[in-house]
Amino acid sequence: MQLTGLNYIGSKTSGNGDKTFQSSDPALNQLLEPKFHESTAAEIDEAMRASQAAFVIYSKKTAKERAAFLNAIAAEMEALGDELLNKAVQETALPLARITGERGRTTGQLRMFANLIEEGSWVDARIDHALPDRKPLPKSDIRRMKVPMGPVVVFGASNFPLAFSACGGDTASALASGCTVVVKGHPSHPATSELTIQAVIKAAQATGMPDGVVSLIQGVSHDVSTGLVKHPLTTAVGFTGSLRAGRALFDAAAARANPIPVYAEMGSINPVFILPEAMKQRGTQIAEALKNSFTLGVGQFCTNPGLVVVVDDAATNAFIEQFAAHVLPAAVGTMLNSGIASAFARGVCTVAETMGVKVLSKSTNAGTLPTHAVAVAFVTTAETFLKDHRLSEELFGPSTLIVKAAGVAQLLEVASHLQGQLTATIHGTTAELLDHSGLQNILVQKAGRLVFNGFPTGVEVCPSMHHGGPYPSTSDTRSTSVGTAAIERFARPVCFQDFPDASLPTELQEANPKKIWRTVDGKLSQ
Amino acid sequence: MQLTGLNYIGSKTSGNGDKTFQSSDPALNQLLEPKFHESTAAEIDEAMRASQAAFVIYSKKTAKERAAFLNAIAAEMEALGDELLNKAVQETALPLARITGERGRTTGQLRMFANLIEEGSWVDARIDHALPDRKPLPKSDIRRMKVPMGPVVVFGASNFPLAFSACGGDTASALASGCTVVVKGHPSHPATSELTIQAVIKAAQATGMPDGVVSLIQGVSHDVSTGLVKHPLTTAVGFTGSLRAGRALFDAAAARANPIPVYAEMGSINPVFILPEAMKQRGTQIAEALKNSFTLGVGQFCTNPGLVVVVDDAATNAFIEQFAAHVLPAAVGTMLNSGIASAFARGVCTVAETMGVKVLSKSTNAGTLPTHAVAVAFVTTAETFLKDHRLSEELFGPSTLIVKAAGVAQLLEVASHLQGQLTATIHGTTAELLDHSGLQNILVQKAGRLVFNGFPTGVEVCPSMHHGGPYPSTSDTRSTSVGTAAIERFARPVCFQDFPDASLPTELQEANPKKIWRTVDGKLSQ
Repeated sequence: MQLTGLNYIGSKTSGNGDKTFQSSDPALNQLLEPKFHESTAAEIDEAMRASQAAFVIYSKKTAKERAAFLNAIAAEMEALGDELLNKAVQETALPLARITGERGRTTGQLRMFANLIEEGSWVDARIDHALPDRKPLPKSDIRRMKVPMGPVVVFGASNFPLAFSACGGDTASALASGCTVVVKGHPSHPATSELTIQAVIKAAQATGMPDGVVSLIQGVSHDVSTGLVKHPLTTAVGFTGSLRAGRALFDAAAARANPIPVYAEMGSINPVFILPEAMKQRGTQIAEALKNSFTLGVGQFCTNPGLVVVVDDAATNAFIEQFAAHVLPAAVGTMLNSGIASAFARGVCTVAETMGVKVLSKSTNAGTLPTHAVAVAFVTTAETFLKDHRLSEELFGPSTLIVKAAGVAQLLEVASHLQGQLTATIHGTTAELLDHSGLQNILVQKAGRLVFNGFPTGVEVCPSMHHGGPYPSTSDTRSTSVGTAAIERFARPVCFQDFPDASLPTELQEANPKKIWRTVDGKLSQ
Repeated sequence: MQLTGLNYIGSKTSGNGDKTFQSSDPALNQLLEPKFHESTAAEIDEAMRASQAAFVIYSKKTAKERAAFLNAIAAEMEALGDELLNKAVQETALPLARITGERGRTTGQLRMFANLIEEGSWVDARIDHALPDRKPLPKSDIRRMKVPMGPVVVFGASNFPLAFSACGGDTASALASGCTVVVKGHPSHPATSELTIQAVIKAAQATGMPDGVVSLIQGVSHDVSTGLVKHPLTTAVGFTGSLRAGRALFDAAAARANPIPVYAEMGSINPVFILPEAMKQRGTQIAEALKNSFTLGVGQFCTNPGLVVVVDDAATNAFIEQFAAHVLPAAVGTMLNSGIASAFARGVCTVAETMGVKVLSKSTNAGTLPTHAVAVAFVTTAETFLKDHRLSEELFGPSTLIVKAAGVAQLLEVASHLQGQLTATIHGTTAELLDHSGLQNILVQKAGRLVFNGFPTGVEVCPSMHHGGPYPSTSDTRSTSVGTAAIERFARPVCFQDFPDASLPTELQEANPKKIWRTVDGKLSQ
């Protein structure tokens, strides 16, 4: 495919703005061609209008037609072959094997949502039949289901150039539910976004979807992002990135004349609690697995374990020594861009300078480029941690902080002190998990996913996944960005009272032609 | 029961503040005893802390225990007998028959939620079993369900002193899901709120619930309301009332360090569209039914039909004449308080003074008290309506505006122009509903409930009800305040990865002891 460096208003390319920007190859620290045109306010408006016009048509397509579109996108992304993979590698410095796996996840998500809507029960159809003879008042026939909200703005994430970007989870779930999408491409990988959107447009044309079902807006400026969020036709927003950027979008949406939902996945330190008996029995294995988890992908995962809470005893001291030794030879990593790498360097410096915190271990390897980073582990006491709220903030990159508690009671105190998290992990024997059930109870309130005797990195795409948590890990703890339940985020319920069968959506018609699961007069049935 | 005029921090009464206020009998325009103590900031803090402390215990109660509590509340409310009914009548001027019916609805809601949680499937349990041999990576065992958010603040509504007030729908759904509740009593009926909370506390004590599971904060000042919304321990807010007040709470919640959901049900004009053939066939009946609907309860329903869009033809002119005749003898109504009545009077004046709008008909009866109001109907053209956005705003009270469109195309233009609504109604034959399917498509985007050949007043409490709509009708179109689905508003999903069976909530244990519906490896089963 040809890279144009332009915005896509549906299938129409547009580059009316003067501002341009370029991505760079983080592994070489070199700018890449072509130049990309930052979108103007008029182009944003045009994209949103095209999205609304397309929504009127697209939202009336059958689930089967939308499923064909999603499957076609997956096939078109695969058809891009090495071109897409290599471009993503070039723009992110993520290894080819990882990007290849991520493409599989991305196409897998698209096909999962295609299956989900073809089956159709996700709309949560509920039917209560009329009772014309009820006293004192007759009861109407009422039928409810979920319908798409409207045009959705999806912000691509830097750390997943495929799975959480132009046609990642949010775009897939929005399109699945019947929404149209305007993608704000992440400025770190604009070419990957353009190739992806070209594939989506090709799929849309091949499957008879309206032009404007997906658009791509490129840009670096804050104004482009807030322009999209504040546009009157935008009905919801999906975002993955920093707390600062996510909160700015949330605030812009909340300040609208008509506020809209913002699903922002933001910061999380993903605490890992290690109980004493597990430490005694498995400290050696945990030390190695922890090193692998916090350095995975140069620590650039939202589920990176940035905090490890342990009880200060002999087994813990042995664990800390072993863990420190694992970190020393850790390889130099190339981060997604120099901005992220320098933010990581500054963050490491801030933690290192904190009274009562010491560097436990730092890789002996040294970076040579401004995008390079090396793993570092810190250690401190629970007292220090509880006093200094900055230690509870996410440090995006290969870093973790071990907090030594005087006993399990203080470990629980640390747990109670935490902000909202995407994940929280407990290592323990079953007996000590049950003995200290207070820990699990606290963490249920703090996190969206609890992990037992594992590590939080690696997020399964399945019906039971909840990838979301209390603020600041996300802006909306009720919603997940991963798994089949993500389709609910861009939908809203509507009910129909006394409508004739022929005028109802298929899902609500009396004969249940799709054989979906429905709650009929209070009972689930097919 | 003894009225104390105090706040309830759990079962403890407290009145440390200097400010007091009184409710009044709107039918007599007389102040009522006793004086009520407005809550201080310290009392609000104490109530929220008590709520959090109670939450730790209450959220671990079994569904059966919580159901017993809800059923006991219903019984205690009934046991108050005439005392509660008479007090509600006295403080609101709503007729005894209406209040009696509303009590039935209130206790019915409590028992409905008790049944719902005893059955248990509402938690949307999803289980994906481990696949330890999966390549390239093994799959973990993941189990997801909905859990309660935490302490919830519920604002009582003026227009439903029982069903949407101290122990109305929001309190019932919050308690059902396992949340604790701090009620902000509506200052128009503080005695009704106090009696209700006394019943709740009695039920809590009888069923072994922790003290603080419900508290009551009284007050008139804005500071009391925002103090509750901004308190760090508050996790969600339910509100029913004006757009101005609801938006203020929404803004306060969005500005928090950790934003929380606000479910505010606010303004709606509940448009009614009458298509030409229906007008021809049933104009006479519609005229009478419309008069009954817009004057019901002195127009003090959130579902009051405040806008009627018709096509200008001979049948419509006959309809308008008949409708005008129905309005003339309408009885004087007593509104909930003088503030609401004077806001209605001002609003009527504003509409009457609008260029291009004329008074179609006004009751010939005249009020004698500042709480009195009489029915009024206006008429205008679609051109005027489309030009003047104030005509799209809710006017709370017995008023409606008939808008004459030149044809069905212009009627659709009026529909497109509307803001979000709780309800939208179409009168038509089945043939013309299908012929003009564009109207239904537009209204699905605008409203939470669509009514065919009926009227929006009267909201059924059942699984299929969606009482919620796009902004400004509510602040969160994804949620309903009526029906079984309302239990979802104060809950959030959590998933457990690789947890031992014994540590899991009953709903997620392998044996499914409660026999609830669950999605296991992608398939629904019991």
